[in-house]
Amino acid sequence: MVPDDDLALMVDLYELTMAQAYWSRGMNETAVFSLFFRKLPEHRNFMLACGQQHVTRVVESLRFSDAQIERLRSLDRFSDGFLAWLRNFRFSGSIQAMPEGTPVFPQEPLLEVEAPIAEAQILETLLMNYVHLETVLASKAVRLVIAADGRPVVDFGMRRMHGLDAAYRGVRAFRMAGLAGTSNVLAGLDFGLPIRGTMAHSFVQACDSEMDAFRTYAERFPGTTLLVDTYDTERAVAAIIRWLKSEPSMDIGAIRLDSGDFAEQAVHCRRMLDEAGLGHISIMASGGLDEHKIDALCRSGVPLDGFGVGTSVGASSDAPSLELAYKLTEYAGRPRMKNSPGKQSFPGPKQVFRQRDADGIFLGDTITHREETAEGEPLLVSTLRAGHRVEGALAPLADAAHHARAAVAALPASLRTLRDGVAYPVAISDRLRRLQRETLVRVQPHYDDGC
Amino acid sequence: MVPDDDLALMVDLYELTMAQAYWSRGMNETAVFSLFFRKLPEHRNFMLACGQQHVTRVVESLRFSDAQIERLRSLDRFSDGFLAWLRNFRFSGSIQAMPEGTPVFPQEPLLEVEAPIAEAQILETLLMNYVHLETVLASKAVRLVIAADGRPVVDFGMRRMHGLDAAYRGVRAFRMAGLAGTSNVLAGLDFGLPIRGTMAHSFVQACDSEMDAFRTYAERFPGTTLLVDTYDTERAVAAIIRWLKSEPSMDIGAIRLDSGDFAEQAVHCRRMLDEAGLGHISIMASGGLDEHKIDALCRSGVPLDGFGVGTSVGASSDAPSLELAYKLTEYAGRPRMKNSPGKQSFPGPKQVFRQRDADGIFLGDTITHREETAEGEPLLVSTLRAGHRVEGALAPLADAAHHARAAVAALPASLRTLRDGVAYPVAISDRLRRLQRETLVRVQPHYDDGC
Repeated sequence: MVPDDDLALMVDLYELTMAQAYWSRGMNETAVFSLFFRKLPEHRNFMLACGQQHVTRVVESLRFSDAQIERLRSLDRFSDGFLAWLRNFRFSGSIQAMPEGTPVFPQEPLLEVEAPIAEAQILETLLMNYVHLETVLASKAVRLVIAADGRPVVDFGMRRMHGLDAAYRGVRAFRMAGLAGTSNVLAGLDFGLPIRGTMAHSFVQACDSEMDAFRTYAERFPGTTLLVDTYDTERAVAAIIRWLKSEPSMDIGAIRLDSGDFAEQAVHCRRMLDEAGLGHISIMASGGLDEHKIDALCRSGVPLDGFGVGTSVGASSDAPSLELAYKLTEYAGRPRMKNSPGKQSFPGPKQVFRQRDADGIFLGDTITHREETAEGEPLLVSTLRAGHRVEGALAPLADAAHHARAAVAALPASLRTLRDGVAYPVAISDRLRRLQRETLVRVQPHYDDGC
Repeated sequence: MVPDDDLALMVDLYELTMAQAYWSRGMNETAVFSLFFRKLPEHRNFMLACGQQHVTRVVESLRFSDAQIERLRSLDRFSDGFLAWLRNFRFSGSIQAMPEGTPVFPQEPLLEVEAPIAEAQILETLLMNYVHLETVLASKAVRLVIAADGRPVVDFGMRRMHGLDAAYRGVRAFRMAGLAGTSNVLAGLDFGLPIRGTMAHSFVQACDSEMDAFRTYAERFPGTTLLVDTYDTERAVAAIIRWLKSEPSMDIGAIRLDSGDFAEQAVHCRRMLDEAGLGHISIMASGGLDEHKIDALCRSGVPLDGFGVGTSVGASSDAPSLELAYKLTEYAGRPRMKNSPGKQSFPGPKQVFRQRDADGIFLGDTITHREETAEGEPLLVSTLRAGHRVEGALAPLADAAHHARAAVAALPASLRTLRDGVAYPVAISDRLRRLQRETLVRVQPHYDDGC
């Protein structure tokens, strides 16, 4: 793992070369950078913003230690003066961000950084990595929650998530998005998500017999879940029923199916259990599940009471990345933009206003210049000011989870599904459009400067 | 980030409940677990094994601290006796693993753990997470190396990799797989991969003009790479040519294209530069590249001298996960297997032998019982014995990179491409097949035990 002490060196080299260039030229006026994405991943209707709290904490405390400065000196690229400046680095700017759990759409800033340009530049990769990870994972998890339609979904993803940092911080995003539990002990403890898990096939295989394995668990962990597919699901369930008839005091909470045709098996096992008077034993499924499989199972009324999901949520398999960008939009009070093909951006600091109908359902958003107002609720709020966190910036995770649940419920119904919905309306204010036109005219002619 | 001190709690709960069940029943005989995958990701011909060294280090030093034990106690699931056992946990077993950089195929163990069963069980998730991450990223990176056909490929992925752990350890995998550089400062320093990076669009935008930005870099960083697509690539290159005519002492190493049609622009810029006598300035491309785009550019002879690749390599976009499994294959000297639909495994500890033709090209592999021999070179070697690393287990990364390069060169040509090759022949020894049949017969009848 990367020790927290080394965080400041988790930086792309060009941020430091740019910072040195700014420093050596005395370019230290205020810059505004905007973090946003240009388009949604395929078949996605919205993203759920997450990771801003971690950014707040990290940015506030980011420092370059003596040891780090010496490592940078070894690269033979940086001047003593610049390294001395870096040694004294403290972020002195401000950040505005959407609260975690806010549905977010293309072109809308998830957060904006306003600071002396070198300071804002140095944060680029660290800030993108944190917001990217949590946003990607929360946005995937909420799809599972939507598909499961009220049934609990538990994260089993740690083994195939990308490293331990993802496995750990992912659980935070999962809780925010509404998952009901996790198998990850440390993250479950730290982020207050119930920790779940009973047995693997290896336990059944190691015991003298499957029933020996089941009995061992039932005696030690009342209410346990028994994994029934190691050898033959139907025969295992029949054996459990015979056993519980002879020992009715045994407290079995659930059985778990982990392979085969879940629909067929769940119907069959449910009938067997019900006929034996074991209607209180629930049936869980895990193994290769994603939101589409869960949705199909739930829609066809299969009697499954909950789902364990691993790889698909942990790696966000269908959309493992988001084309998040961190772009300069203003420097020294003047709007800035680039004009690369397909990558034109809107200049200037921004605000996003979200309008609702009489029932509280979101109607659409308007992206404005930060100095404008528009109808609706402004979404970007201050989290850091003069380098220090604003009171209330670090809302409890339970509040973010509550906010996310309410916000997802307020999305137009066509977006709150797994299918492609009607694109959510995001308007750009006239002032921003005008600013874009004017900025484009201004940045173009310098090719004729005779250089 | 997860501090190293907390590593032991990065465990799936069921590993601890199983360990307590084993402990309380006195089940402490030797188990063999095998780490393997059942099938390749779509359109992949091989995986490049990686992550085994990190496993060696972590397993050797894994401990549960007093603080961790108290956190586990708070879950109200574990007995004092078991927690005392856990407090004294030291891995006492052995590990055999394929050397990092070895091409690996379905059903072949990447590594095998042999230890008292509770010890081997507790490692499951930590070990899978490490091997999964590095194997997935190395296997993606080697495709970029194959596509670039000798041109350097530099990792720009950190911002969209899944967390900092992935971004850090990924660079290790990238170096092993043959990438030429990384933008990641800390990982580049720690893993000895050249660190690359010059400027972002924001620098060009912040300066008074593009030429002002270029001049700033050329004066401070001789041999620098200039990013030319912020406003208009062709006009920017024309301006650079005019400038270098008037100031021929300026040392520009390369220009970088980051948007638009790379083929068309590269041809055009190459011609402009060559006609101006600037044949020594190379042309790099970055932005949305993956192995298929690089392959197409290289095959059509586009004059690009190197590539920067971000998201596609960092998230392994086409195959962000591998269905890696950690399965019990023997306990107390008796072979074990499960019989779940589609998930039948081969019991017993194993070895893999790789055969070569007279030119050294791999002909095929044979998976055998560990006590057998077969033609060819045995791939699994001892890395931990009685809980301690074996001398030579932690080969220098340069050696692993060399091993990987030689091994990829020795693959049949049809597998060393981006297209689907003829499946590599992996035979299962007669003894393993017989053992599977016998084990299946043995594990089935216990349903009739009258339980």
